[in-house]
Amino acid sequence: MNVDFINPFLDSLLNVLKTMASTELTPGKPALKKTATAHGDVSGLIGMVGPSTKGSLSISFEESLALKVMERMLGEAPTSIDDEVTDMLGEITNMVTGGAKNLLGEKGYEFDMATPVVVSGKNHSITHLCDGTKIMIPFTSPDGNAVIEICFDQ
Amino acid sequence: MNVDFINPFLDSLLNVLKTMASTELTPGKPALKKTATAHGDVSGLIGMVGPSTKGSLSISFEESLALKVMERMLGEAPTSIDDEVTDMLGEITNMVTGGAKNLLGEKGYEFDMATPVVVSGKNHSITHLCDGTKIMIPFTSPDGNAVIEICFDQ
Repeated sequence: MNVDFINPFLDSLLNVLKTMASTELTPGKPALKKTATAHGDVSGLIGMVGPSTKGSLSISFEESLALKVMERMLGEAPTSIDDEVTDMLGEITNMVTGGAKNLLGEKGYEFDMATPVVVSGKNHSITHLCDGTKIMIPFTSPDGNAVIEICFDQ
Repeated sequence: MNVDFINPFLDSLLNVLKTMASTELTPGKPALKKTATAHGDVSGLIGMVGPSTKGSLSISFEESLALKVMERMLGEAPTSIDDEVTDMLGEITNMVTGGAKNLLGEKGYEFDMATPVVVSGKNHSITHLCDGTKIMIPFTSPDGNAVIEICFDQ
């Protein structure tokens, strides 16, 4: 796993949340790990398949952040994680991965995306099972925290 | 989504659990739904990308079933869902999807698999966000229940 992969995903999440929901996240220090587990209250996951690699991505939000993003997009906040929040996080996952895919494609890294899956459940944990190094990028905000994890085989 | 897709996944899970863990599941009636949410304590997810379609699969186990399968495979049961259980469910997800991929490839349905992701957390819910119909296949056993959900775009 190349560190070139970090910035496209980081920039893409910052950009999507700023554009869609006027929400500014502060990225923390990305970490490369062999094993990692992300925790969150609602997470979007997506599989990625390229000619020479495959992998997975997750974006996990704390509930407070997910509800605030929803409020900024729709003008009103649901009281808990409902179908609208689930759909929104699936869409964010698609947009972030699609944005990173475009940036990485320009550098010669090609992959196709599967369809997103959203997991909800208070403080669930997510483990990416691929052979390569995992990248974890933490984000903080006054409304709650988020984390992206990306893993590619090889 | 073609009903031809049901049996390869159903047969593959029955076969994997019987072979790896001497565990017999009883399949229930598969359902086709536009919207569906699976619940479980530990779930394996995997993205699928084909030349003309893409989708996602999840296999969710109740904790009691996951721990029993672990005990049958390793001779001792962990007391809760730990890294070994997570790895096992990732492996089961890979094997079930790979088995179905082979069966479907013979019928002319081709797809590549991403790497699996495992989610753990008591009674989390999983929502597949794709445009096509979802297939849900429930399984029961004396040790606990499981459910497969599959969704392909188009």
